[in-house]
Order: sequence, then C-alpha cells, then structure tokens
Amino acid sequence: MRPDDSNLAGNVHGGIILKMIEEAGCIIGTRHCNVQNGDRCLAALVRVEKTEFLSPMFIGEVAHVTAEITFTSKHSLEVQVKVIGENVLTGAKKLASKAALWYVPCSLKNVEKIMEVPPIKYASAEQEEEGRKRYEAQKMERMETKARIEEAVAPPANPEQHTVGFSQSSLIHLVGPSDCTLHDYVHGGATMKLMDEVAGIVAARHCNTNIVTASVDAINFHRKIKKGCVLTVTGRLTFISNKSMEIEVMVDASSMVEAEMRKYRAVTAFFTYISLDKDNKPLPVPSLKIESEDEQRRFDEGKARYLQNKAKRLSNNQGQQ
Amino acid sequence: MRPDDSNLAGNVHGGIILKMIEEAGCIIGTRHCNVQNGDRCLAALVRVEKTEFLSPMFIGEVAHVTAEITFTSKHSLEVQVKVIGENVLTGAKKLASKAALWYVPCSLKNVEKIMEVPPIKYASAEQEEEGRKRYEAQKMERMETKARIEEAVAPPANPEQHTVGFSQSSLIHLVGPSDCTLHDYVHGGATMKLMDEVAGIVAARHCNTNIVTASVDAINFHRKIKKGCVLTVTGRLTFISNKSMEIEVMVDASSMVEAEMRKYRAVTAFFTYISLDKDNKPLPVPSLKIESEDEQRRFDEGKARYLQNKAKRLSNNQGQQ
Amino acid sequence: MRPDDSNLAGNVHGGIILKMIEEAGCIIGTRHCNVQNGDRCLAALVRVEKTEFLSPMFIGEVAHVTAEITFTSKHSLEVQVKVIGENVLTGAKKLASKAALWYVPCSLKNVEKIMEVPPIKYASAEQEEEGRKRYEAQKMERMETKARIEEAVAPPANPEQHTVGFSQSSLIHLVGPSDCTLHDYVHGGATMKLMDEVAGIVAARHCNTNIVTASVDAINFHRKIKKGCVLTVTGRLTFISNKSMEIEVMVDASSMVEAEMRKYRAVTAFFTYISLDKDNKPLPVPSLKIESEDEQRRFDEGKARYLQNKAKRLSNNQGQQ
Repeated sequence: MRPDDSNLAGNVHGGIILKMIEEAGCIIGTRHCNVQNGDRCLAALVRVEKTEFLSPMFIGEVAHVTAEITFTSKHSLEVQVKVIGENVLTGAKKLASKAALWYVPCSLKNVEKIMEVPPIKYASAEQEEEGRKRYEAQKMERMETKARIEEAVAPPANPEQHTVGFSQSSLIHLVGPSDCTLHDYVHGGATMKLMDEVAGIVAARHCNTNIVTASVDAINFHRKIKKGCVLTVTGRLTFISNKSMEIEVMVDASSMVEAEMRKYRAVTAFFTYISLDKDNKPLPVPSLKIESEDEQRRFDEGKARYLQNKAKRLSNNQGQQ
Repeated sequence: MRPDDSNLAGNVHGGIILKMIEEAGCIIGTRHCNVQNGDRCLAALVRVEKTEFLSPMFIGEVAHVTAEITFTSKHSLEVQVKVIGENVLTGAKKLASKAALWYVPCSLKNVEKIMEVPPIKYASAEQEEEGRKRYEAQKMERMETKARIEEAVAPPANPEQHTVGFSQSSLIHLVGPSDCTLHDYVHGGATMKLMDEVAGIVAARHCNTNIVTASVDAINFHRKIKKGCVLTVTGRLTFISNKSMEIEVMVDASSMVEAEMRKYRAVTAFFTYISLDKDNKPLPVPSLKIESEDEQRRFDEGKARYLQNKAKRLSNNQGQQ
Repeated sequence: MRPDDSNLAGNVHGGIILKMIEEAGCIIGTRHCNVQNGDRCLAALVRVEKTEFLSPMFIGEVAHVTAEITFTSKHSLEVQVKVIGENVLTGAKKLASKAALWYVPCSLKNVEKIMEVPPIKYASAEQEEEGRKRYEAQKMERMETKARIEEAVAPPANPEQHTVGFSQSSLIHLVGPSDCTLHDYVHGGATMKLMDEVAGIVAARHCNTNIVTASVDAINFHRKIKKGCVLTVTGRLTFISNKSMEIEVMVDASSMVEAEMRKYRAVTAFFTYISLDKDNKPLPVPSLKIESEDEQRRFDEGKARYLQNKAKRLSNNQGQQ
C-alpha cells in the first residue's frame, strides 16, 4: 500500500481495496471461462455483494488477495475474494475484507455476446445448493435495483449545513486508456474506486473529520462503460445512524462524441462510512436535516437496510456460536 | 488532492491544476462540437490564456472545476474554467485559479481535418463583441509566438551559481498510452504538467527553497504530439523581479521510429514562480547573473511582460472599484 | 522523485530507478536502430548487467539519467546509463546508480523479426575490443541462465520464522495498457519495478526493518510478455551474509484468454537488499534457517556469487589506485 492509496491519516481508501478485489476476480473468472474452445472472452463484472471492511489497512502494509470460484450458472459465475493485511515490520496479519462478485463472460470479438461458463465441481451437494440460492437471490435483486433508478437532482444554491444538499457531491471523469483493459471497456474496479472517492467527499463534508469506508452494499453494474465516455459520479447522504452514514452513489455515463448524447445509469450502490478520531476510534455523526418528502423516504429506506443488516449480523454471530 | 500531486511542503503543483482545467475544457468542448451531424471530433487544445494561481491548494483538499463555453468562431471555441479549492475538514472555500482555453475540433477519422463549431447563443451583443475581441487578440498573438521560436542552447559545462546556465533544466519523456486519449495524440494537460515540472526544477535550483507556480503566461500549442514521440521539455530563467522568477519552457517533440527524426517545437510558455518560507510567505529571490547578449535581451523582454502585467493588474483593480 | 516512488522512510525504491534506466536505454536504443531505412523497430530489453545502488535517493530529489551506446553487434546493442541524484535545496549531487543494458531491435510490423543494428564508431580499437568481450560474456551467461530455470515451489503451510518459506512472496499482476508502449508488449522497466517490489517484501518479512535495494545481479529477459497476460512474480531468499540478503526473483507469464494457458518463465534475477536503522546505517541480518538440500544448494551458489562479487570489487578498487 502506497502513499497515494490512503488518506491523510494513513488509512487505505476502501476504493483501493475494492479495485484489488475486482482485479483478482477478473483474472480467475477470465481464466476459468477460457479453458474451453470457442471465442476468447473476458469476465465482465455485473455485481458485487455486500462487502464489509473489517479492519483498516495502512500505508506500508502488504495486502494478500485470494480468490476462488464458488458457483457457476450457465452464463455467470461467483467469485469469493479475501483480503488479508500484513504488517511486514511486526508480521501481524488481519482479515481486512471479504467479498463475493458475479461475472458474465463477454466475447472479445463481440462484447454483446455472452459466452457459456464451464461448470465447476462442488465438494458436496449442499455447497452447490447454497450457491444456487445465492444465485437466485442476486438475480432477483439485480432486477429490482434496475427498476428503482432515480434521477440525481442538483442541490439548492446555498444549502444549510448538515442537509442532504450541503454534502451532495459529483465528480466528472473522462475514461482514459488506463481505466480499461484488453477490450476498450472500463474495469469494474476503476469505477468502484471513483465511487468510493465521491462517497468519501460526501462523508467528510458532513462530518469534517477523518472518515473511512465501513461497508458497501451490493454494487450493481447495469450497463457497460466504453473508453472515451464521460462519467458523472454523484453521491448523497440517505441515512445516518448514531455512528454511521449511508451514502447513495450513482454512476451515469455518456459518450462525448456520439451525436445522441443520452446519459444512462451504469452503476449504483450504497456506501457506509464512519467518522474516526485521532486514535482511530469511531465518533458520533452529526444528525441529518431532512428537507423534503423524497429525502424522508430515502432516509426510511436506509434505516430499513440498516436494521436489516444489524439483524443479519446478530443472527450470523449466533449461528457461529 | 493526493500526496503525489504536491511537493514536500504539501502545496499542490500548478501542473496538476492545469491538467484538471484542460480535462474540463476538453470534455465540454468535445461535447459541444459533437451535437451536430458529420464526423465525430475531439476538441484539441491550441492555447491557454494567462493563468494565475490565486491561492495555494494542499493535499486532502477537494478541487471543484467548472467550465463554460464563452465564445465560438467558425473553427474554434473559448472555454472559461474556474478551480475552487475546498477544505472538507473546515468547509472553507477559496478561488484557486481561473483560466481561458481555446480549442479546435479535429475529426476522429482524420486528425488534420478541422471541423466547424456550432455557434452558441450570447446573453447580449456586448458579450459576443467582447468574445470576438479576445478571439482576434489571441489569434494575432499565436502567430507572433510561432514566429519567435528559438533554439534551446545547452548550458556551459561548469556554470556559476545564479547564472541562467546553472538552473537550466531539461526533462525527456517517452509519450505512453496514459498520456493520450481516444485518438493517439497527447492530451494538452499532460504536456502542461511536464512543463510545470521542469519550471519547478529550474526555480528550485535557483532559489534552493520551497517554490510554487504563481502564474502561467499564455501557452501556445503549435503542433500536435503523437503517441510514441519523445518529448524534450526545457526550462530556463529569463527574468527575475524582487519576489518572482520568470521561466521560459519549450517542448520539442521527435519521433523515435521515423527515419527522419527531426525535432519540432510543439509548445512554448512562460511560467512565473515565487519562493516561499516555512509559513508560506514570499521570500526575496537571488538576482540573476546575466552572461550574454541573448540573456540580456530575454531579460528585458521578460521585464516588459512583468511591467505590462503589473499595469494590467492595477487597471483591473481600479476598474473593479 | 515523488511520495509514491519511495518507502515510508523516504528512500526511493530500486525498482523506480531501474524503470528510469530502462526508459532511457529504450529511447536511445530505438532512436539508433531507426536511423537506417527498412522496417521501423523498437529496442527490446534482453539483459541488464549487474547494477549497484551506490547511494540512496530521497523524495523531492531530482534524478538525472544519461545514456550512451557503447557497443553494437550485428543484432544487439549495449547502452550504459548513469543516474545522478541532485538535492535541489542544497545543490548536492551524488552518483546513485550506473547500469549496462543489452537491447535487440524488433520490427514493429512483426515482433519476432530481429532487425540489424547500424554500427557505431569507437574512439579506439581497445574500446571496441572491450565491448566485444562484454558482448561475448553476456551471450554465454544468458544461455547458461536459460538452462538453469527451476520451478518456484509453494512454501509449506505454516513456515517457521527466518526460514526460506516464511518470507517467500508472490505478486500477481494483470498487464494493463500503461505497462506497455507502442506495440502491445510490456516495457522491461515495468517488469523490473514489479520484481523489486516482490524482493522488497521478501526482505522486509525476513528482517522486520526498513530495507533498501543494494544491487541487482544480471537480469535476463528470456521471453517477451504481451498485454493481457497475467504475471506471477515470485521472490525467495537464497543467501544471507552478515549484512545483506540475496533474493531470487522469477517472473512467469501466462495468457488469461488463450485456450492453452501454459506458464512460461519470462525473466529471472537476483536482488541484494540491506537492512537499515533509523539513521540509514546498515543493520545485521537474521541468519537463514535452511530446511532442504535444494535450499542448501541455492545458499552455496549464492555464497559463491557473493564472494566472487567481493573479489571483483576489491580488484576494481586496486585497479583504480
């Protein structure tokens, strides 16, 4: 982890970790789909499941990323990835993050053509069955998210502090060659890094403190993004608990050079940030001033997600006992 | 702003700000020229007007870049860009820089073909008239600069301290894929970043202190630079006032692989640097030892530019009262 | 030198210096081979001779890289490169490193076609004769190294501290557009940077201190690496003297998308690291626990290289008196 990977306090950005996770998933997924004959193909990211950042990483640490294919359907595959942080000076290791990603193999000749995925062997029938459940669940959720797309509205001219409009932020990025690989489409990891950057600015503007990514809700990649596109990445606060902020991040893409320059929503996700003091201890977050019915609705939806995640965590902990 | 964007004292390099300004100008200019039918095209930078760096930016701050098209001629357009720096921890904002850039739309099929620019609507006839004056003025100055091209002469073997030869510096850069975009020509912003890097080395060598870019005189892009070229960027001191240094920067390009490897002058500009103490207060600059008639002539020309700029600043201030 | 070029203590990574050296060599070599008519070509790196890092470089310093062609055979050329570090605040300069690189000109139309190298003029017959000796010596050594290729074996599951298995490290890298130039093959410099990164992790894991590259034994580039390949870079300790560690680094490449995904050994080299205290003084290195016959053999071979280098240094010093 290098100086540019981290904020001023030395914490590595969540976006950098997401980018490494995606690179590992892309390599193992692409390799797997090319063991068969037929068109050569590239594994394109379509979804990242909820990802938690369990312990912070710092500049100078070494990140170990391991990936495994855990389920295959006819046209998609699931990769599970673990990131372990190692302090090479003390030898201490810790689990920094784990994630599950879904990929679809696109032909290198024609990026719209989805190839078939060679099946993997499962250790047991149960394992396969659990994978199938995850597959069905994500398929349904991806369709639901696609239906729920809303416009990002520009904030008022002089927003009051601690309102949604005050911290809402947008970043515009021109997709360059180094964002892409092999064919001229943007790496999922490059997009996630930009999303985390915007979410971090929103969180810092609301708190005026050092902030870090705690978790990312499922990220859905609705459409591919081509080289030469302009991305508008917008983040806004949706919900605030006692010690966390939920930020909705939307990525809109549009071609700079097509005569018809319609924007389309390419990616959406919810990022959760926490505020830290100088000793990396969580701080209380200033409450959010709600100013419209839409903001209230989004706040309530965010609260529902927050309570659901909390319940899931508790039941998982009990399951492990 | 990330650690790599700044010097050891935490000041963001002027070149990084110029690069962001140019990216914004390129996006808005390219979009505007592609609303019509005909060949798809890319806005190529031909000139940046005098740019002042009004307040320094630091690592961790957020830069807001906004761009607006303010004049169109048949084959070129003017974009005005503002950069506002925001300290997300305190919420303080300041105007870091503003700039005006001229672009020409080149066809993506044939980079030598200049497309027509769709006209914009002006708020008033005065506004259009003022734009036309700026257009005529820059057109004349670009032609004049092109005529004034001179060779960069290698400095003597053991130059004395505080001479022009002592601080003269060159940087050689092989144009790689990440310097280019869409078609294989170098982004104006990438070139300006290199120019600022060289000017910074010249200034630091003369002063042996922390230095920052104060302003950049009009930058003229005489010729395009292709991927695979080798750039030689040379900077030398021309003039020194009590608290500022003027550095002439020249960019020469040559192909590595063409049989006929003639160098050509691609870009020229004058950068003004100031020297800072530990509290970011300006320091006096050591005076320049002139050793030849050419150096004296360039010094006098620099002095004329300095006095002209000073007079312009004073009359602008009076105009605002 | 920027923050990202260095470790936490501010020392610039050896890999960054190797990358600059290679860029200089590639530019001068490519230029030389294109002065004649015939296919345009690119100088491809095939070998770097033993390189010593004579004095450390730090963030904020300016690196001067100068390159000169010192020998040409029918199909290859030797470039000698010097890196001088300059502290622009004090004006102090020091020789940071010098290196000799061998290049082969590959046609840009067909990368497998090796072009002829235009001969250079030598200052004296002795100079040419010495160059020929270096040429013959490196040719023989390249063939020998190619024959000596061995598999990198995965370390045991729970290796004991200070064993070879404990510090053995691998890095996986997906070759992207910014690693390549002109034709879609990886720059030798990009590969060397990755090799130094892995060697640095191995050294830090063994010592748990701040470590720096002291020297690199000849690096041999056996095969070219194409864009879209996955590189596995593995480093393991071979030999430890009182104050230095020798680390063998192997680069294996494999295509992600070819049906037949055989790995091939692309590059090999030995890196020597030293451990530093807070005042940049060398520290004793913990001794290495040997656990197998292979490890003992590699240790003995490393010791032979170490003693040979020491003898060479001594005789060079005497030669200079």
